[in-house]
Amino acid sequence: MRLGIYTGSREGDAEWVAALKGLMPDLELRAFPDWGPGHEIDYAFVWQAPADLLQQCVNLKAIISLGAGVEHLTDIQSALPEGVAIVRMADPALVECMTEYVLMNVLIHHRSVLDYQEIQRQSLWQQLPASLARRRRVGFMGLGNMARPAAILLADMGFDVAAWTRSGHHQNGMESFAGTADLSAFLGRSDILVCLLPATPATEGLLDADTLALLPPGAAVINAGRGTLIVEDDLLAALDSGHLSGASLDVFVHEPLPPDSPLWTHPRVILTPHMASPSIVESAARYAAGVINQLRNGAVPEYIVDMIHGY
Amino acid sequence: MRLGIYTGSREGDAEWVAALKGLMPDLELRAFPDWGPGHEIDYAFVWQAPADLLQQCVNLKAIISLGAGVEHLTDIQSALPEGVAIVRMADPALVECMTEYVLMNVLIHHRSVLDYQEIQRQSLWQQLPASLARRRRVGFMGLGNMARPAAILLADMGFDVAAWTRSGHHQNGMESFAGTADLSAFLGRSDILVCLLPATPATEGLLDADTLALLPPGAAVINAGRGTLIVEDDLLAALDSGHLSGASLDVFVHEPLPPDSPLWTHPRVILTPHMASPSIVESAARYAAGVINQLRNGAVPEYIVDMIHGY
Repeated sequence: MRLGIYTGSREGDAEWVAALKGLMPDLELRAFPDWGPGHEIDYAFVWQAPADLLQQCVNLKAIISLGAGVEHLTDIQSALPEGVAIVRMADPALVECMTEYVLMNVLIHHRSVLDYQEIQRQSLWQQLPASLARRRRVGFMGLGNMARPAAILLADMGFDVAAWTRSGHHQNGMESFAGTADLSAFLGRSDILVCLLPATPATEGLLDADTLALLPPGAAVINAGRGTLIVEDDLLAALDSGHLSGASLDVFVHEPLPPDSPLWTHPRVILTPHMASPSIVESAARYAAGVINQLRNGAVPEYIVDMIHGY
Repeated sequence: MRLGIYTGSREGDAEWVAALKGLMPDLELRAFPDWGPGHEIDYAFVWQAPADLLQQCVNLKAIISLGAGVEHLTDIQSALPEGVAIVRMADPALVECMTEYVLMNVLIHHRSVLDYQEIQRQSLWQQLPASLARRRRVGFMGLGNMARPAAILLADMGFDVAAWTRSGHHQNGMESFAGTADLSAFLGRSDILVCLLPATPATEGLLDADTLALLPPGAAVINAGRGTLIVEDDLLAALDSGHLSGASLDVFVHEPLPPDSPLWTHPRVILTPHMASPSIVESAARYAAGVINQLRNGAVPEYIVDMIHGY
């Protein structure tokens, strides 16, 4: 059995190979560019691999995505041999890091940290009005495996949490909203909006001037899913008008974010370079090895992607 | 039965009186300066009240402190009639707010937010090394009712949490350190130090150049207990030398913090004006009414202060 590895960086590859070899000594590992003849590759572990590299693998059984998002495989998938399973990254460490990022940023907006930093710069001792968690309505756009632990934790801390999903996931302790019909009601009750949606045709540009206007005045937006969800110019306009009080952005339409983007210097934007949920080789390799073992034993891994919906 | 109220602000008093009257309609409420003859006052609900005001109350049964700290009563207490109970504020909303503040600031240092803000100001797309929660050692100085929920939550999230207390509280899932003998071992393993200690002679100046030097290089300090714990000049020196990576400070030796304090403008200090745990009239009044009802029924409230230890 042979596993082709493509991480997009040569140095990175060596670290992944070492970690995977330790976990699956009987598997032959081939890091790009040394995949050899495509027909010899049984499994691929990739991030933004070239389409022709994967399409040459006529005996491919499965592709494991190095990231939680699989939009890098959307165009490739139709040209693959039939029956190739696409499995996305669901390393528990990735989820842990995302939970930290979401919790931290919800609390930053809940506790007016941007305002307090502004007041600190002026050396002013001034307390701002405080709100209890139970009066703060947090709305999750997307309630998949990356979002659920943070949503549950915030609900446990007393926040008034609701979730909006394509088909209406029910989760104890949270109000549930489903699909286009519920979107405006959901946005209208979200003081802090947490976006953890995949990049699909259905989510592209979903948050634009019209939908951002549905948020309550003073709302904050956190995006750690995919940048294509938000029309960045419309977000900037909503921040400039004061309709939104702030935004925490970890993902962008173009990454790396171009140096001339006005988001960098906006005083109401907390900007991070796609770090909410970093790949941690040790634990992500363990996840990938677990998936490959399942596939070799004929079991069905939990996070097989439904490419019609794109996640 | 008569309750004397002194909050230090005339406007504030009216709000407290309204809330308490609704909860205890049979109690006569007297807001300062209209306490009448001191001997008529049975209970006092105060924050930084003048000593002579309380000492005139010869029939006083109990004083309820408006804040969690009772250092404002230390000097007064010895001149009070014997047997006056001092009860500190332990409103669950106060604890909730403290939990939010501590969790948020631990995450801010854990996820290198000060560094990312600096990188953002330079419009640089640069990911910093990340550490998993299980590799981050959080140390609580003080594990009283204000600290415990945050410590438990952080341990549940996977952080390596330990606590240092006077007598060594044991809490499941946390290493426990006790008293002077254990202080250096405790500080030596605290990457993020959370200080929630009362102001007492034993804690005054406890964190100075010598003890701060015991923290691991790059450690961060969070103080939301009392400002007297930390020698502010020594903290600044440790931040300037780079030994400490940052500090979140909500309390200070002198409050309001003087406008010329170098803490205001230090790039590694997140400074807030004693807002971690704000008094929320509605719920704090409910707590005070509960305590008075217990006292009237001969019960012993949970948070009676041991004035020998000062908390």
